[in-house]
Amino acid sequence: VGISRNEIKRIRFLQTNKGRAEYHQYLVEGPKLLDEALASKADIDVIYAVEGALSDRIKHEVVSQKELSQISGLKTPNAAVAVVNYKDPKWNGIQGDLTLVLDRINDPGNLGTLLRIADWYGMKQLICSPDSVSHLNAKVVQSSMGAIFRVPVFYRPIMEVCSEFREQQNGEVLLAHMDGESMFEIEAPKPALLVMGSESHGVDKDLLNHADFKRIHIPGNGGAESLNVAVSAGILSAQLMK
Amino acid sequence: VGISRNEIKRIRFLQTNKGRAEYHQYLVEGPKLLDEALASKADIDVIYAVEGALSDRIKHEVVSQKELSQISGLKTPNAAVAVVNYKDPKWNGIQGDLTLVLDRINDPGNLGTLLRIADWYGMKQLICSPDSVSHLNAKVVQSSMGAIFRVPVFYRPIMEVCSEFREQQNGEVLLAHMDGESMFEIEAPKPALLVMGSESHGVDKDLLNHADFKRIHIPGNGGAESLNVAVSAGILSAQLMK
Repeated sequence: VGISRNEIKRIRFLQTNKGRAEYHQYLVEGPKLLDEALASKADIDVIYAVEGALSDRIKHEVVSQKELSQISGLKTPNAAVAVVNYKDPKWNGIQGDLTLVLDRINDPGNLGTLLRIADWYGMKQLICSPDSVSHLNAKVVQSSMGAIFRVPVFYRPIMEVCSEFREQQNGEVLLAHMDGESMFEIEAPKPALLVMGSESHGVDKDLLNHADFKRIHIPGNGGAESLNVAVSAGILSAQLMK
Repeated sequence: VGISRNEIKRIRFLQTNKGRAEYHQYLVEGPKLLDEALASKADIDVIYAVEGALSDRIKHEVVSQKELSQISGLKTPNAAVAVVNYKDPKWNGIQGDLTLVLDRINDPGNLGTLLRIADWYGMKQLICSPDSVSHLNAKVVQSSMGAIFRVPVFYRPIMEVCSEFREQQNGEVLLAHMDGESMFEIEAPKPALLVMGSESHGVDKDLLNHADFKRIHIPGNGGAESLNVAVSAGILSAQLMK
């Protein structure tokens, strides 16, 4: 039992984008998230856990508290760390009624929460612009509460995805924007893409200038300039999936 | 100019619940949030900023980068720290059509995001159970994006607030719950309280067992067990404020 110095080094490398890309692996921390990974049949390479943290029926290597803290990316290591294999999902165009498209989302907590929304509404995929935060980032995995194991995430140029969807699938492209039509007045189109911009930059100008894409807006009457991006996506998705 | 050792010590004390309670002050960090504080006429005691970070028209003390990092609670200090005076808002019962009531919300990012929702929908107050995270916590202030300056927050026993509201104001009490009625089928009552439970514990049992309170639910058809609490509050508020 225990864990070699080299393996510790390798696992710490998996806490970086470079390491995850090189090994096509990422880390899942904590017994609860691990349960979700097992239930969703994620391709688990190896599990390290402190004594007694996991059932004997789950194959794992026992490590000391000290070893666990060496491989954990969390300030307070959470009893178990799993190394999970990752395959890039196969792109076959947009599937399903509604899909979230994320333009430069950089906050990992927001991306995890957005994945949870996609999962809640049974969306078939999530699209991110190539410059968004990695969905394999530990904080994304954590805040996705398991959605990461169920919703395929594609990193693709958004303009290309939206144009193809409009032209080849006759779908509607909706852009979340302050100056849009009220979500209560738009007839929910199917299929549709819902494009959310980052909190600091909003939706890309080229998309806003595209004549075939519609702007959609959440009516509000208070003092706030905007809502959190995941909250907005949730409100709009609820309305469009009604 | 500059800042004394004692003042540095005092400001660091304001990063704690105890310090904020003792001085009735809290900290606001970064020029952007400071703009919101000024625009919302928050009662600012003193502003410390590095040279050139703020306009000369804003009265402030210039400090060195090193001094700023000594008073900042952020890993990457953000050019300015303000000490803001805080008064407990006066309780006059529930005002307005819809009010969020938060049962044991512990994540500061979630509370900030919930404040933003309350602000977006022009809610007159936000109610938290006494054991919720403090709204003056730096991360709450940060993620509220200025809503903290506009929405009064009350820490009160939830059962008492809900019962009084029901009996004295003839209002509806709605509890967010998996086994509730679909939000699309509930006739939006006014006035109403919307009670959100913490992600780990859900809504308190005594509230769930109260015969006069209704459960409300967000329909979904995917694999996720739940949505983030702020996302849920946003979706339900949008529907109830329609």
